[in-house]
Amino acid sequence: MKTVENVKIAYIGGGSQGWAWGLMSDLALEPSMSGTVALYDIDRESSQRNETIGNRIKDAPESVSSWKYQACETLQSALTGAHFVIISILPATLDEMTVDVHCPEAFGIYQSVGDTVGPGGIMRALRSAPMYEIIAGAIAQYAPDAWVINYTNPMTFLTGMLYQIFPKIKAFGCCHEVFGTQKILAHCLERYQGCIGVDRRDISIQVLGINHFTWVTKAFYQGENIAPLYAKLADEFKETGIAGIEKSDGLNAKFKSLNKVKFDLFNRYNVIAAAGDRHLAEFCPAWYLKNKSTVDSFGFSLTDVETRKQIAIERHSRAERLYTGEEQFSFSPTGEDGVLQMKALLGLGDFVCNVNLPNAGQISNLPIGAVVETNALFTHNQIIPLLSGALPEPIQALTLRHVQNTTLVREATRTKSLDPAFQAFCNDPLVSLDIRDAKQLFTQLCAGTKPYLSSYSKPHFF
Amino acid sequence: MKTVENVKIAYIGGGSQGWAWGLMSDLALEPSMSGTVALYDIDRESSQRNETIGNRIKDAPESVSSWKYQACETLQSALTGAHFVIISILPATLDEMTVDVHCPEAFGIYQSVGDTVGPGGIMRALRSAPMYEIIAGAIAQYAPDAWVINYTNPMTFLTGMLYQIFPKIKAFGCCHEVFGTQKILAHCLERYQGCIGVDRRDISIQVLGINHFTWVTKAFYQGENIAPLYAKLADEFKETGIAGIEKSDGLNAKFKSLNKVKFDLFNRYNVIAAAGDRHLAEFCPAWYLKNKSTVDSFGFSLTDVETRKQIAIERHSRAERLYTGEEQFSFSPTGEDGVLQMKALLGLGDFVCNVNLPNAGQISNLPIGAVVETNALFTHNQIIPLLSGALPEPIQALTLRHVQNTTLVREATRTKSLDPAFQAFCNDPLVSLDIRDAKQLFTQLCAGTKPYLSSYSKPHFF
Amino acid sequence: MKTVENVKIAYIGGGSQGWAWGLMSDLALEPSMSGTVALYDIDRESSQRNETIGNRIKDAPESVSSWKYQACETLQSALTGAHFVIISILPATLDEMTVDVHCPEAFGIYQSVGDTVGPGGIMRALRSAPMYEIIAGAIAQYAPDAWVINYTNPMTFLTGMLYQIFPKIKAFGCCHEVFGTQKILAHCLERYQGCIGVDRRDISIQVLGINHFTWVTKAFYQGENIAPLYAKLADEFKETGIAGIEKSDGLNAKFKSLNKVKFDLFNRYNVIAAAGDRHLAEFCPAWYLKNKSTVDSFGFSLTDVETRKQIAIERHSRAERLYTGEEQFSFSPTGEDGVLQMKALLGLGDFVCNVNLPNAGQISNLPIGAVVETNALFTHNQIIPLLSGALPEPIQALTLRHVQNTTLVREATRTKSLDPAFQAFCNDPLVSLDIRDAKQLFTQLCAGTKPYLSSYSKPHFF
Amino acid sequence: MKTVENVKIAYIGGGSQGWAWGLMSDLALEPSMSGTVALYDIDRESSQRNETIGNRIKDAPESVSSWKYQACETLQSALTGAHFVIISILPATLDEMTVDVHCPEAFGIYQSVGDTVGPGGIMRALRSAPMYEIIAGAIAQYAPDAWVINYTNPMTFLTGMLYQIFPKIKAFGCCHEVFGTQKILAHCLERYQGCIGVDRRDISIQVLGINHFTWVTKAFYQGENIAPLYAKLADEFKETGIAGIEKSDGLNAKFKSLNKVKFDLFNRYNVIAAAGDRHLAEFCPAWYLKNKSTVDSFGFSLTDVETRKQIAIERHSRAERLYTGEEQFSFSPTGEDGVLQMKALLGLGDFVCNVNLPNAGQISNLPIGAVVETNALFTHNQIIPLLSGALPEPIQALTLRHVQNTTLVREATRTKSLDPAFQAFCNDPLVSLDIRDAKQLFTQLCAGTKPYLSSYSKPHFF
Repeated sequence: MKTVENVKIAYIGGGSQGWAWGLMSDLALEPSMSGTVALYDIDRESSQRNETIGNRIKDAPESVSSWKYQACETLQSALTGAHFVIISILPATLDEMTVDVHCPEAFGIYQSVGDTVGPGGIMRALRSAPMYEIIAGAIAQYAPDAWVINYTNPMTFLTGMLYQIFPKIKAFGCCHEVFGTQKILAHCLERYQGCIGVDRRDISIQVLGINHFTWVTKAFYQGENIAPLYAKLADEFKETGIAGIEKSDGLNAKFKSLNKVKFDLFNRYNVIAAAGDRHLAEFCPAWYLKNKSTVDSFGFSLTDVETRKQIAIERHSRAERLYTGEEQFSFSPTGEDGVLQMKALLGLGDFVCNVNLPNAGQISNLPIGAVVETNALFTHNQIIPLLSGALPEPIQALTLRHVQNTTLVREATRTKSLDPAFQAFCNDPLVSLDIRDAKQLFTQLCAGTKPYLSSYSKPHFF
Repeated sequence: MKTVENVKIAYIGGGSQGWAWGLMSDLALEPSMSGTVALYDIDRESSQRNETIGNRIKDAPESVSSWKYQACETLQSALTGAHFVIISILPATLDEMTVDVHCPEAFGIYQSVGDTVGPGGIMRALRSAPMYEIIAGAIAQYAPDAWVINYTNPMTFLTGMLYQIFPKIKAFGCCHEVFGTQKILAHCLERYQGCIGVDRRDISIQVLGINHFTWVTKAFYQGENIAPLYAKLADEFKETGIAGIEKSDGLNAKFKSLNKVKFDLFNRYNVIAAAGDRHLAEFCPAWYLKNKSTVDSFGFSLTDVETRKQIAIERHSRAERLYTGEEQFSFSPTGEDGVLQMKALLGLGDFVCNVNLPNAGQISNLPIGAVVETNALFTHNQIIPLLSGALPEPIQALTLRHVQNTTLVREATRTKSLDPAFQAFCNDPLVSLDIRDAKQLFTQLCAGTKPYLSSYSKPHFF
Repeated sequence: MKTVENVKIAYIGGGSQGWAWGLMSDLALEPSMSGTVALYDIDRESSQRNETIGNRIKDAPESVSSWKYQACETLQSALTGAHFVIISILPATLDEMTVDVHCPEAFGIYQSVGDTVGPGGIMRALRSAPMYEIIAGAIAQYAPDAWVINYTNPMTFLTGMLYQIFPKIKAFGCCHEVFGTQKILAHCLERYQGCIGVDRRDISIQVLGINHFTWVTKAFYQGENIAPLYAKLADEFKETGIAGIEKSDGLNAKFKSLNKVKFDLFNRYNVIAAAGDRHLAEFCPAWYLKNKSTVDSFGFSLTDVETRKQIAIERHSRAERLYTGEEQFSFSPTGEDGVLQMKALLGLGDFVCNVNLPNAGQISNLPIGAVVETNALFTHNQIIPLLSGALPEPIQALTLRHVQNTTLVREATRTKSLDPAFQAFCNDPLVSLDIRDAKQLFTQLCAGTKPYLSSYSKPHFF
Repeated sequence: MKTVENVKIAYIGGGSQGWAWGLMSDLALEPSMSGTVALYDIDRESSQRNETIGNRIKDAPESVSSWKYQACETLQSALTGAHFVIISILPATLDEMTVDVHCPEAFGIYQSVGDTVGPGGIMRALRSAPMYEIIAGAIAQYAPDAWVINYTNPMTFLTGMLYQIFPKIKAFGCCHEVFGTQKILAHCLERYQGCIGVDRRDISIQVLGINHFTWVTKAFYQGENIAPLYAKLADEFKETGIAGIEKSDGLNAKFKSLNKVKFDLFNRYNVIAAAGDRHLAEFCPAWYLKNKSTVDSFGFSLTDVETRKQIAIERHSRAERLYTGEEQFSFSPTGEDGVLQMKALLGLGDFVCNVNLPNAGQISNLPIGAVVETNALFTHNQIIPLLSGALPEPIQALTLRHVQNTTLVREATRTKSLDPAFQAFCNDPLVSLDIRDAKQLFTQLCAGTKPYLSSYSKPHFF
């Protein structure tokens, strides 16, 4: 077996409780790579805790490779010499998210996730941007040749920020959202053709769109077109929906869905929506989030920051237990593509998967330069997008609106002015307000996230 | 003075009560052309009445030219030898429009005009299409070199239909909607610079978009940029609106507006919306037509088919009186561009005005082939679009959605299937319904206009 | 009659002997404008002579307007307050041109003009660029709102330079080259339809391409398509050619042509070439300039710098005589569009003519931003390109090659390196050399124009 | 090991002497597939001979799979049930090629290959087109779902013909021309880095262009950029050239080259040309084929049909010997990708290689629909082009000229008129003739291939 040693991964947000452990597990279970993970976090204590947790792993019997974990005090020390940089941070705290998500409810605006588009997505973008400026600047200086994997939301915006600050960066955004649709397609094979236990990775899909608003325009299993099976499912369950197909845990378990949004979209456009219902709903006009009873009728639930806070507390306790050794580290593959992507980039075998990259033509009818999600070929030190065709026409227009909003928010970060961000805010499909109300809500939201907006000049109406 | 004689104009919908008389007046007051107007109408009686009315005109002292009016029984006789073809018809009757406009109200959908986009626009397109197939076919056969001026709504769709049926047609769509904005700009000159009595034609604007959803990206008066004056007005009257600037009569008088939608849009996008509030509102997401109180707060009124019926009755009586001679024909320039366009095409002097034509690049960021509205140079036997730049980004996405819906409805007429039309229907910004409700409403609307849809196969869900 | 007074025109290259007097004549014969012409020239003496010559004009009986001429010592004083800036300079002297044109002959490269493309065009571009940097910089500082009319060759390159240095410049390039083709079309009307004395301005053409390589894709006279008449002429005279149609004087009289290149091109592509044979030949592959006998067989002649020098000497003597009053200033309209363009921009009536501008879509299949030639509408303080369609396919590829070479030379001026210019040089259709010979010739040409290239770093192979 | 049985390959041109035996060898050495090869050839005798030769193979000890060969009398029987269709025919005979190649020499036109572009390529396209119409029509009828592999030249034109006749065809063109450049890159690794024996398949390249005029814009070995090594080589051998790097046999051995054209192109454009010198030369302006001494100085040789005829005779004798068993079939891998492509399409493992397909955006600056060559991912029943970027600018213009010529020749086949083909002919870089000479030569060439042009109407000048 070909192996690569002395790989250095810089993990920004390395104090994470959840993602970090998943990565540790995936790395430990992968025999072909070994090296060092440099953990950087503004919460220094948590990264040190993860250092301890991580370094204990290699002695576990499940572990088939050897990784050293090291908490770093500076970006410079974390980044220097890194082959890969992982960015997975929580911009600000859940308190700001509480404002993002719940404050708009007084204006009749409901959000099912609140971290991608809509008021929540825009505010999160604004407060993350200054952090990403620092990170991208540091990468330009200390690790310009490293591959940079962004996991943080809003994915489209933040991956774009990295390129805005450092145009030669080798960055891509990584998201597991479309796996659920592969699982649904596997379920179709089981339900309608008796094929049991098909792995989602064996379902070959052509995926395109922007992160969390992605579409599947081709689906093959063993060389056969299986899109018709999905049509059958969408028809059979258009009224009742269907739950439980996507195995999930953590947050997603709390926010399960019936796929009724997916099926409604399929009935509109004859195209398979690839993301989960809660994400899809936020990108659309008022079809699914008009009010709470619409939400109920579509069988999904709104984001609830309280639950997230609860989970955070649980994770924190678990971190303590793992740290002290009170709890054993549990090894289980996350099902994520991150480690496979790194392997491919290290020359350990080609790999095709979905990825977020600036559009260079992989989607023919979205603007060049906009960050888009399609499949790409990961090979030795290269990521080459697969030509993925055009978004179906009406979906193009819906998507373009968000692409243009992202451009406006980027403009806000470039000019350090909140005015273009407000323009995006008014233009977001969830914000069905006249200008006066829009100003009022935007003012409240900015107040709620104020400490993180100090680098911006105020909008003209403040 | 250069003059052209023996001009033949074929007027389809020549029994019109209103438009026809305006044309008669404009022709009578224009000394440089003379000839024949062939009146064709499926309502033969009304065209014969107009023949009598028209032929009486040349003897009036106001008349400075000589036109002969002739009611024709067939499209063939009307079209043969025509230099110009005017199409101005009412597809079906106001009864169908009653269904189009009022039936959606039960589903919370309000329409301020109902003849362009939204449920009303789509139904009107569907029932006009078979008529336009006949007309375009007849033009291809009997008057392939004539210039064809379309006045009928939905303008974008129907002008496109003409090209779909007869690709070499020399057709363009004509609409006075942007004149109001020129008048508002003239008012700005008066209010802020003391220039009184500026003619709207002396305000040079760069106009672009699709009919009834047009935008002014440049405005000059005597070589000076006057866009800043509009900004001032929009700011001064953003709360109260301002009424009465656009001199208007007939229907528009009944449906006056405060320009608050225009100003709200200006505050969103920093671009001057060129069409009237009632039209603009229908193209937008739920900002202005969410419910009746929103409509009230923006100071415009919903279409009311009863009023239209009332007006139709009044016009009919007037037609009778004009026919019998009981009422004198009144000469007054309509302010429309139609006669000036014809003059220019006959070589009587170049002329620049807004016009609807298939996009050949005059708008850089709308699809090639989509019917768009921009300025064009009218010269001897040629119409040459002026390069009009790009729609501002967020407006592009809003517009593209309607362009794509128009394509879908056109697809319905091409395939004679209502399925693509239903897809457009669901995708219209005014139709904020889930698929089940959408099907129900669409079914009701089709029932209301049934006699005119006999050439289409039913949608899959009927 | 509407008039405009106190117009200020800054004339850079105002010591010109020829162009300047044409302008003086045209201005004197135009009753609707008056003002000042500020003459700036690095040859201060010649501009002072023109001041004297010009100021004498207004007293002549032919003169119907009043213009004051004033030689200026600095660009600042010439430009400040200018409404128009005319740039018409001779970059360097005819000695450099001698090298440009005759030195390549040793390598079998013949040039029929030598100021647009080919070795001569590229060298002229390189040595003009530093001057245009200064001029554009001064305009940005002292007359940013002025309309700037460039008459200097290489037109495409230099007009582009102005935009490269000052992107907001209101500059356009002006060239009479296509008028000859209008005259040929007028001749067709005479020969085949007996219409005698048609003015070239009454031939409406759709012109597109790049300066000196322009094409006519539509031609109308009184609303009728007259392209078929040209086909007849091209066929009738394809063997013998036809001379003397274009009334011309000065240089063009010396370099008359038989239009056989035009007709050969028409036979290849079925499109009317708009520029003169000597220009067209230089843009093409080795069809017309392969060797001297090919040139002879096509009935045109090569540039001969000696003749140009002769003419320069004659003009200089005439300048002296005009200055001393020994010779009377002769008034005759130049037939150029310059004064008409200024009138239109001042609001004295719309005007359509061909003009060189950065492509914003007026030609659909050349790159955006490349300077192209099409018709435009000149109106009060605006120039609006007319949508001019696509270059016929095979002509597009030929043209694109020159567009890309222009980009490379521009890159040379931007980076101050001769390397990209050498790349363009090798890629020019006239330069059929292998790399070794190309280096040798380029080295000789650079030596010949050395004093003007001091701002560039040497190419890598020097 | 995963295997697929009962694969049916239809081989059109299955009487081939050379290609067919290579395929037989490759199939015999590949253990994962077995099935039937249906041999169709208008030369029925030769296909029957190949049936016998092929069926003897499976008993040889080298053979690890079992294939049945079957000569078919009709396209229908060969195609019905086929999973793959291979098209590898010689359009007409070498006698026509003699005219194509040698007749233009009297006009000073030299061709180094004569089967791709230039007079030879155009004539070959014209006479192949009617055959491809029949083949594509038969595929549409009998094997519409089969993957169709075209090996016949002119590749770009003929692959396009297949799509022109049957737009839903799953066809691609396959060519080994770029392998040589991979071998040169491997040689660079040996020469400059001491890496010996690197397999060309381990050199990862980004290849783009049109067949035989392809370019390498990225080259990686083990994740490292090795383009700088090529620059070193091109510099070291720019004067002398370098021979013998590409191991080759058959025709290529006779027509060896020194790579001086490649190096000259590298010095012009800083991009690696991927095809062989003899092909590259034909696509360029008169740089390399101006006359015989230019050819000599660049160290390659002109096509010589006599040699080809000689080889054909030798092959024919060998066919006899193989048929009678006098000679043993020799097994040796061809190094071609054909069998690997089939394996990947059957689901036996993903594979990336260069391939000719209609452009859907894989090359951003060539027209959509033009057949282009780039890498693609071959996977189970899908070929997905890799996004390959833009051709470097000046190369784009050179390439576009050939793309447009191909369109013109296609137009000739569509309209059954030789006029557009003549337009392409005049426009070909090798045809530096005026129209009169061009007509004369074209007439001679058409006469030379007359029996195959009976379906076309004559050009207007015959």
